[in-house]
Amino acid sequence: MTVQVGYLGPVGTFSEQAAQQSIVNNMDQKYILKAYPTIPQVIWAVEKGEIQKGVVPVENSIEGTVSVTLDMLAHNVNIPIQGEVVIDIQHCLVAREKGANQITKVYSHPLALAQCRTFLQDNYPQACHISTSSTAEAVILAKEEGNSSAALGSAMAAKIYGLEIICNKANDFEVNKTRFLIIGESKDQKQALLNKTSLCLALAENKPGGLYEILGEFEKMKIDLTKIESRPAKTELGNYIFFIDCKANILEEKYADVLEGLKAKSSFLKILGTY
Amino acid sequence: MTVQVGYLGPVGTFSEQAAQQSIVNNMDQKYILKAYPTIPQVIWAVEKGEIQKGVVPVENSIEGTVSVTLDMLAHNVNIPIQGEVVIDIQHCLVAREKGANQITKVYSHPLALAQCRTFLQDNYPQACHISTSSTAEAVILAKEEGNSSAALGSAMAAKIYGLEIICNKANDFEVNKTRFLIIGESKDQKQALLNKTSLCLALAENKPGGLYEILGEFEKMKIDLTKIESRPAKTELGNYIFFIDCKANILEEKYADVLEGLKAKSSFLKILGTY
Repeated sequence: MTVQVGYLGPVGTFSEQAAQQSIVNNMDQKYILKAYPTIPQVIWAVEKGEIQKGVVPVENSIEGTVSVTLDMLAHNVNIPIQGEVVIDIQHCLVAREKGANQITKVYSHPLALAQCRTFLQDNYPQACHISTSSTAEAVILAKEEGNSSAALGSAMAAKIYGLEIICNKANDFEVNKTRFLIIGESKDQKQALLNKTSLCLALAENKPGGLYEILGEFEKMKIDLTKIESRPAKTELGNYIFFIDCKANILEEKYADVLEGLKAKSSFLKILGTY
Repeated sequence: MTVQVGYLGPVGTFSEQAAQQSIVNNMDQKYILKAYPTIPQVIWAVEKGEIQKGVVPVENSIEGTVSVTLDMLAHNVNIPIQGEVVIDIQHCLVAREKGANQITKVYSHPLALAQCRTFLQDNYPQACHISTSSTAEAVILAKEEGNSSAALGSAMAAKIYGLEIICNKANDFEVNKTRFLIIGESKDQKQALLNKTSLCLALAENKPGGLYEILGEFEKMKIDLTKIESRPAKTELGNYIFFIDCKANILEEKYADVLEGLKAKSSFLKILGTY
């Protein structure tokens, strides 16, 4: 069977690069990539069975969490995470003509605009920043609008849509990586190779030391946490859900005590995936 | 002396409401409110001494952290937090005319757009979302552009700029509150009344249990954590800085051990303020 893989399109986004990468890592199957206009639409398409896999950004080394991805996986759908892909992000400033210097509008995805904030402030202080649903969408808009418009996007997108690269290093920080999650049921996961778990939970009581006790459960078995992040529970200011990634498959028998302990100390616990 | 208080303008933003509120809470001084076009500009104005106080959003009950505020206080400036204000956020959809139903563009601040995502999807699925630097700015743009444009903003902004309210409950969630920080040196803080500390730190080593040990320092004195949040250290994916709020003035003598312990276990520690 051909596996359909959804990503945030159109063609030329960093999500497409990540989707390509997720295929390269798993060559014993046939794939078709399918572009969606927003991250929620990728996730809903997997939930409805329209596609078998989705590749969605979850975290960037500069700007942090992609909230909509975490929030949807926690609250809106029941789709397991089956893997992850990390790719380098190199934003270019692109426009119709190389000599463009009267740039008054810069289009891009909000995360890309944030990652290039200082670059834009230093070089184009007068330009207004307009958010788009993806970096490739921004490149298309800049092309349509002509010379006073530019976009932040990948060199690949500039090539695909036929724009000139004005600056190929628009990132404010040298290291700029984004981690993507591969979501969807996987029939061919090899249990023995699973060594990471993503989960989210809410503390059973909002009392001092609640989070300390939760972390103590991981500590019992010396499980390394690679990420912990609080997000609003969306009920009241000060109520949080914690997203935790750890270096162990906590569904394994030997971690049964840890899982029990976590459940006992949480009012809500959801395993988002082992991979 | 008259105290100048900066906020994210123009007139009619929720930040202005918060700035007003911060004054009401402290009537024994004279104040002038001063609008700035972006959050970073408010913070820089305090850093440069152009104004004595700034009121900046830091956290929303639905969308979470305002990253630029935390990142700047941690990395770019040395301005203490001297207080906080929480206000209710009620977004209205506003336009030039009440009967407007051919809305093709909705302007607002990215956080407001995110807080009303489902409302917009259900009622105006065809409309494109355009980010602005503030909700009041969005209201001004919608007014200039005419009938096919609308904005998400406060009822106050609609009144100030003379627009009609099409819907006065555009929020996706019933509870929508934003916490603002009051930043700037304060000469009249009463030490005995300070009962909260905001700080940020990086773990000394990236090893299993590092965060557990940090939380253990607070646990020693049963200090309640009201918030913990990880943000990228901006160096490498997987390196984080933790922002912690706790219910104690940890600069007090009785907490000297806690502070020492935290310092010993951190490669970087910054007290962002006691208030």
